[in-house]
Amino acid sequence: MSKSIFYHAGCPVCVSAEQDIVKLLGPEKVDIVHIGSDRSRISEAEKAGVKSVPALLTPNGNVLHINFGASMADVKG
Amino acid sequence: MSKSIFYHAGCPVCVSAEQDIVKLLGPEKVDIVHIGSDRSRISEAEKAGVKSVPALLTPNGNVLHINFGASMADVKG
Repeated sequence: MSKSIFYHAGCPVCVSAEQDIVKLLGPEKVDIVHIGSDRSRISEAEKAGVKSVPALLTPNGNVLHINFGASMADVKG
Repeated sequence: MSKSIFYHAGCPVCVSAEQDIVKLLGPEKVDIVHIGSDRSRISEAEKAGVKSVPALLTPNGNVLHINFGASMADVKG
């Protein structure tokens, strides 16, 4: 089974959600991508359908937007 | 480890998120509560901090609000 990807931008709500998601899914099942610092992956996230962060991209390609933290426009600045 | 609780109200986005969450966490780790039909559990959800559905209440008491579907006000009607 392929991994989920958790996209976040370092905001407090992102970090809190990250800890919950990693605990629930297990650290081996989710990659964490900080698109605030790794900006080269912003376009990848947008293509996957990420509208806000934090968001979880599931292995089947669905995007679960979790607690609204920051819009992609805010991340891009 | 205690279970997570997934609160939803039967909307399409809820059902889609439910399937993703059950697949990711495993069906044995999450209880599904339909607060649109089981209205006696609305107050329980609100006390737990649920502001909109679908939402996932984690075993440590955090609420992860997933894709905004319906506000609690809408569920109560």
